[in-house]
Amino acid sequence: MASNFGVLIKRAANDQDKAMDAYARQYGLTGVQMSMIDFLGRRSNDVVLQRDIEAEFNIQRSTATVLLQRMEHKGFVVRQSAASDARQKQVILTQKAVGLKQHVESYIDNQQAKVEAAFSPAEMAIVNRALKFWIEENRK
Amino acid sequence: MASNFGVLIKRAANDQDKAMDAYARQYGLTGVQMSMIDFLGRRSNDVVLQRDIEAEFNIQRSTATVLLQRMEHKGFVVRQSAASDARQKQVILTQKAVGLKQHVESYIDNQQAKVEAAFSPAEMAIVNRALKFWIEENRK
Repeated sequence: MASNFGVLIKRAANDQDKAMDAYARQYGLTGVQMSMIDFLGRRSNDVVLQRDIEAEFNIQRSTATVLLQRMEHKGFVVRQSAASDARQKQVILTQKAVGLKQHVESYIDNQQAKVEAAFSPAEMAIVNRALKFWIEENRK
Repeated sequence: MASNFGVLIKRAANDQDKAMDAYARQYGLTGVQMSMIDFLGRRSNDVVLQRDIEAEFNIQRSTATVLLQRMEHKGFVVRQSAASDARQKQVILTQKAVGLKQHVESYIDNQQAKVEAAFSPAEMAIVNRALKFWIEENRK
């Protein structure tokens, strides 16, 4: 297998997407929608605006709008004008999505546990540092 | 920034894509097309079939077909029936793409050099091992 860092990251992200899509399908979700439920579920005590989602997923407004509209259509989220700023949409998980939260989080936590079982905390710290370095370099 | 491995990988891949797209634009390419020129350019002594590209990029046949048709339309590749198997398409860089090979490879080599300057070979070995572990886990 290649050891060019960019190629490996790209492949790791693609394979992760495919595995998440395959798991998510049984719940009528895509992998990205599953990530969204995970993100919103872990921040259920906060007001989450669409712009927070754009920042978290590093996606454009139009992409976020399409994603959230699809999720609203499938009954996983509702969007309403934010109390703080009526021009901004607040995004809230529905009961249907809250019911899936446990399956979503257990998948993500389980994947994380596997890598943490295979690599020591010191090794994981190096890996995370390298990924963050790459993120910073590519944002320059 | 999050330290969930999957979230970091996804973000690193997204930011890498965006940076590659931005660089590629000046040559009339997308980041993915640039990766394709890099892949084909480094294998210019081999016969590369469409199925090799599908395997390398881990993409479906239909996705590869659309990508290669676009590149053919823009004059970066030609596709012809393979001598070994007429049902398979061989993919060859055009002179126009060969002229860009140097810009493409220097970008990719330069990104790789940056991460290798910031992390020791021992650290890079751990990082690569973790990415390969993730790829294997997500292919199970």
